[in-house]
Amino acid sequence: MTRADGRKYNELRPVEITTGFIKFAEGSVLIRCGDTVVLCNASVEERVPPHVAPGCGWVTAEYSMLPRANRQRSRRDIDKLKLSGRSAEIQRLIGRSLRAAVDRRLLGERTITVDCDVLQGDGGTRTASVTGGFIALALACRKLVEEGVLPRTPVKHFVAGISAGIIDDAPMLDLPYSEDSRAMVDLNCVMNELGEIIELQGTGEGRAFTAAEQQELVELCAKGCRELIRKEKDILGEVL
Amino acid sequence: MTRADGRKYNELRPVEITTGFIKFAEGSVLIRCGDTVVLCNASVEERVPPHVAPGCGWVTAEYSMLPRANRQRSRRDIDKLKLSGRSAEIQRLIGRSLRAAVDRRLLGERTITVDCDVLQGDGGTRTASVTGGFIALALACRKLVEEGVLPRTPVKHFVAGISAGIIDDAPMLDLPYSEDSRAMVDLNCVMNELGEIIELQGTGEGRAFTAAEQQELVELCAKGCRELIRKEKDILGEVL
Amino acid sequence: MTRADGRKYNELRPVEITTGFIKFAEGSVLIRCGDTVVLCNASVEERVPPHVAPGCGWVTAEYSMLPRANRQRSRRDIDKLKLSGRSAEIQRLIGRSLRAAVDRRLLGERTITVDCDVLQGDGGTRTASVTGGFIALALACRKLVEEGVLPRTPVKHFVAGISAGIIDDAPMLDLPYSEDSRAMVDLNCVMNELGEIIELQGTGEGRAFTAAEQQELVELCAKGCRELIRKEKDILGEVL
Amino acid sequence: MTRADGRKYNELRPVEITTGFIKFAEGSVLIRCGDTVVLCNASVEERVPPHVAPGCGWVTAEYSMLPRANRQRSRRDIDKLKLSGRSAEIQRLIGRSLRAAVDRRLLGERTITVDCDVLQGDGGTRTASVTGGFIALALACRKLVEEGVLPRTPVKHFVAGISAGIIDDAPMLDLPYSEDSRAMVDLNCVMNELGEIIELQGTGEGRAFTAAEQQELVELCAKGCRELIRKEKDILGEVL
Amino acid sequence: MTRADGRKYNELRPVEITTGFIKFAEGSVLIRCGDTVVLCNASVEERVPPHVAPGCGWVTAEYSMLPRANRQRSRRDIDKLKLSGRSAEIQRLIGRSLRAAVDRRLLGERTITVDCDVLQGDGGTRTASVTGGFIALALACRKLVEEGVLPRTPVKHFVAGISAGIIDDAPMLDLPYSEDSRAMVDLNCVMNELGEIIELQGTGEGRAFTAAEQQELVELCAKGCRELIRKEKDILGEVL
Amino acid sequence: MTRADGRKYNELRPVEITTGFIKFAEGSVLIRCGDTVVLCNASVEERVPPHVAPGCGWVTAEYSMLPRANRQRSRRDIDKLKLSGRSAEIQRLIGRSLRAAVDRRLLGERTITVDCDVLQGDGGTRTASVTGGFIALALACRKLVEEGVLPRTPVKHFVAGISAGIIDDAPMLDLPYSEDSRAMVDLNCVMNELGEIIELQGTGEGRAFTAAEQQELVELCAKGCRELIRKEKDILGEVL
Repeated sequence: MTRADGRKYNELRPVEITTGFIKFAEGSVLIRCGDTVVLCNASVEERVPPHVAPGCGWVTAEYSMLPRANRQRSRRDIDKLKLSGRSAEIQRLIGRSLRAAVDRRLLGERTITVDCDVLQGDGGTRTASVTGGFIALALACRKLVEEGVLPRTPVKHFVAGISAGIIDDAPMLDLPYSEDSRAMVDLNCVMNELGEIIELQGTGEGRAFTAAEQQELVELCAKGCRELIRKEKDILGEVL
Repeated sequence: MTRADGRKYNELRPVEITTGFIKFAEGSVLIRCGDTVVLCNASVEERVPPHVAPGCGWVTAEYSMLPRANRQRSRRDIDKLKLSGRSAEIQRLIGRSLRAAVDRRLLGERTITVDCDVLQGDGGTRTASVTGGFIALALACRKLVEEGVLPRTPVKHFVAGISAGIIDDAPMLDLPYSEDSRAMVDLNCVMNELGEIIELQGTGEGRAFTAAEQQELVELCAKGCRELIRKEKDILGEVL
Repeated sequence: MTRADGRKYNELRPVEITTGFIKFAEGSVLIRCGDTVVLCNASVEERVPPHVAPGCGWVTAEYSMLPRANRQRSRRDIDKLKLSGRSAEIQRLIGRSLRAAVDRRLLGERTITVDCDVLQGDGGTRTASVTGGFIALALACRKLVEEGVLPRTPVKHFVAGISAGIIDDAPMLDLPYSEDSRAMVDLNCVMNELGEIIELQGTGEGRAFTAAEQQELVELCAKGCRELIRKEKDILGEVL
Repeated sequence: MTRADGRKYNELRPVEITTGFIKFAEGSVLIRCGDTVVLCNASVEERVPPHVAPGCGWVTAEYSMLPRANRQRSRRDIDKLKLSGRSAEIQRLIGRSLRAAVDRRLLGERTITVDCDVLQGDGGTRTASVTGGFIALALACRKLVEEGVLPRTPVKHFVAGISAGIIDDAPMLDLPYSEDSRAMVDLNCVMNELGEIIELQGTGEGRAFTAAEQQELVELCAKGCRELIRKEKDILGEVL
Repeated sequence: MTRADGRKYNELRPVEITTGFIKFAEGSVLIRCGDTVVLCNASVEERVPPHVAPGCGWVTAEYSMLPRANRQRSRRDIDKLKLSGRSAEIQRLIGRSLRAAVDRRLLGERTITVDCDVLQGDGGTRTASVTGGFIALALACRKLVEEGVLPRTPVKHFVAGISAGIIDDAPMLDLPYSEDSRAMVDLNCVMNELGEIIELQGTGEGRAFTAAEQQELVELCAKGCRELIRKEKDILGEVL
Repeated sequence: MTRADGRKYNELRPVEITTGFIKFAEGSVLIRCGDTVVLCNASVEERVPPHVAPGCGWVTAEYSMLPRANRQRSRRDIDKLKLSGRSAEIQRLIGRSLRAAVDRRLLGERTITVDCDVLQGDGGTRTASVTGGFIALALACRKLVEEGVLPRTPVKHFVAGISAGIIDDAPMLDLPYSEDSRAMVDLNCVMNELGEIIELQGTGEGRAFTAAEQQELVELCAKGCRELIRKEKDILGEVL
């Protein structure tokens, strides 16, 4: 099967990462994966939410789409007075993924909030947010080290996220919206540089899928994550 | 490793299902999985949300915990004017899982809302909601057939959900809260009677996990789902 | 006039009270009055709202109906971002009724919140909540005594609530929904074991009523409350 | 017992009623009962809420206190994003009271909303709202007749509201705040010109009360309502 | 051009100011400008918002229209759960205008909130709020001096506000609603007793306007403000 | 006086305008004025709000700052469930400014919403939003003409906005945050290509200002707007 943009079934869309897009944030990344564009800003604050154990830090994420990120304009959450359920689900995924990358004891009693604002959405916004958000997080931690606040970075692993899906029974990596809307099965995967899984979400709204199919999708994602972590290292260096 | 309640690593907690707990709902189920108690009510309404294609129906779910379902009382969502992010994430999972069980064209232009209200929570509330909610859904559809509204049930598959986790490197099925809070990895799985996957959510907040570990957890879940679907058939009969 | 369920004009519906329905709450009661089912959970917290005088405690109530408690599904409050006005009115009544039962100085600087969640509603949910909520409150206070937190129970009186109404000019005790919707006058009454009134709410939306009629309804309620307090004593013992 | 303002136990505070305070409303009344000042405006709209039976009209009320109506400034509801529970309870009482005064079939498919905004609060604001709101309602209905919209007024009865309480075991009519805050028992009563009861709310937060005491309070209120209806007739004439 | 109410182009509507309208507020003013009626209450609280510098006080304003202040009833903000954008804009203008009149260091660590509630709106409600709110503020400060809380008033200037507009190319002072709705250009101006500008807002929704026209409108407003400050001095005396 | 960035008192910051930043919006502009960066997207919808006269269109704006647009992270509006008052004020200014540029009858019964999302804020965000939003609006209208929906553009004028302020008694054009926070007087001005004023907002929170000073600031703004409109013509051409 040929893809509309000429990619192979296991090929990523072109990825472009701009660091320092915003100058105020401790870490700022604009990530483009094909036509998906997400601005990821990491902010450090010297306090933690009440549920956090003494001596530990916290990492959390917020996700939002600008009203005209999509083909149709959608009303802002504040206009409806409700965080969209989809955003709530996604920002919890991003938060867990980034939290897993950090030694919270080493971070100390501070919070890093990673804001992922989708400027343009063309599929894969949540995994682009994980990848871009991770770089922003790593940059913010590096800044804490450079400023002497922390002795060394609390980031333990490189982390990246990607999606895959099944279209007409064929597994495909990194679906844009036009493919995503035709996919029977959709799987998002967040991995570290050891190829281990941090988050996995598979959905068969079109049809159920077998464990074998699921494994195939995970392997596709593993290839994608390896390549994305390669790009992360190009930006951040081999050592965190 | 022995478990606090004496279960084997691949054993479910005792499950007790009461149908018709509420007399007004088209389908009503009280499900107990160990100390987790969820009231699942399916309601039929003769209209669909605007995004649904003409001729098709809709299946959706709402999930909520009573304020004293847990060890500590928590404030009601309405007191905070916000649906909890956790509830938003969970009810989307339940909704997708139940929607996948139904032929929406056969259902016709009506909505079935499955309300899952957790009366007591001791781990596994989301998967208990899927299992209990599925039975409520099937009963509601059966009622539509009995009343002559539908020629046959739009439910295509038996569906059940269960969780598994890794504790001290050992995979375990169906974690209560005391185990869940110690688990390094947590995986929720929704399957049909063919052993196919409908929803899969794995999280490694404690540590990342390998694809092999993930497969092991899915197999544990498959065993659990088989047993739960067995119970569903005891209640609903072999044919939907 | 004969009643649909064969009861006499001054007869209560069958009442069934299950204590310990939920294991986490300090006091937990499932009360069934005919087809009305309310789960009443009392929670103790070691703090008081700011308006409470130093050295005193606080007792409050929250009331809510599950979306499918009634013949038609209703949207959740959180979906509308508004506590229903009816719920606000009812929970204030329950709160005042239960607060009147307690010596707040003896309770000390702690709050007992009684959550009344209607699982099924068939008339008389607010007074069933008072009766069930009172038992949950008494159980929670008893637990504070058993744990040595309090030297003796701060509960001063047995308290119960019941409704009566005028249907076709005939006074009737304990109206189910089918009668309630035909009633011209509706009166809710909360009393203690001395037959004294704690709360009284009479409404003549169908027609106005005379002071004599009102007295007749209060006398009916007094009989109902005596019987309910008899049941409370069967559960709690003669001494609080 | 002598009262701070020299009134007898069964005497009303001075009442002053200004009609036409606002020129746009179909009916507008500023009512002063001692230091309590409420602006009551009745607005007619040519539509009804969905729950109203075809051919019938609707009467409803909204109640609010200006932030500095009391001794302390209180935050606006909109600042807290919540209608105060007290306001919700009170506006339901006012709405039921005024609705009971109207033949809704005669009103036809239109809604009259009576806004009761408390400019200054010194006890008895809910009953002052009923009395002032009734006059505003009657004026609005009269305007509909004058304009030829209705053949005759749908108002069936004169309606007024007043409170009474027990202070140091003595029943007292029409309590200002200084008395109200010391009262053991508090009773609000809405009556028509025949002395029949429309709404009755008695609360014993200080102590429980006997049926005999309750009757005594109702009789005090009956005297108060007779005098208020006398004032209503001075303004509206003997015939509605 | 002659005006509907016979005024000259540079003439104010009749202004009537009642102080002490509400007895609880530290400063209370009912201001009538033609048919516009605003109740302005200044409340003193012994705390400041977190953003205020140590040793300094704060002055802020809230603005709201009663639901039937206008020709049509409008829903309350709390019913929509949103402060109207228009109110938000206006209360910021009033707050800045009144804050500019006060030496915040002299005020000390306390907040004065000026509530401006429009009882009837017929154009010019925001500037009537500034003028009436200023008098309420000055009275509240004077009370702080009388009570010995402050050595002298922190109010530095007399402040008043007025609007002007261009109708059929003619500049006009103090537009009522009937003129305002026909105006091409609308300008609101807040000034002190030296004729200096504190706030200026000009809008050309009907057509753009030249700098010369703008100056002409400012001059008209200057005349209006002089006369309003004359009235303020009649009430407050020549010295603040 | 020399400025930190070496500009003259009447000099604009460097302006950079990228059109087509987002591919889905009918008009999309990224505008940079110094370190202020705003994404302005114009969306066309084929319906109008209820208050719009038949046959006419509507133009409106929404303004929001990303949480990390500033030196400190701020909470999202949706987290507080309130549109910030500042945003409400600003988006009304932008909406009026852009609406004034359009012949709403020529636009027909459709709405153009211009979303202005501040990615980075360093002073002058509201006027940058007007300038960038105008270009997005003009592009969207041009697209309607190109698609044959409209015979010719409904945009009547070029429109741009800029701010000026008084620092140490010296008037300055186009203040960045570091200057803005020291300014005694702040004035925002929106003008068309004829040098006429559309919106004018002057605030003297630091000190009051004379009409002469105000005129000086307007003249500075006129120079700035001329230069900005020059840039608009470079992008859009001389004819709209």
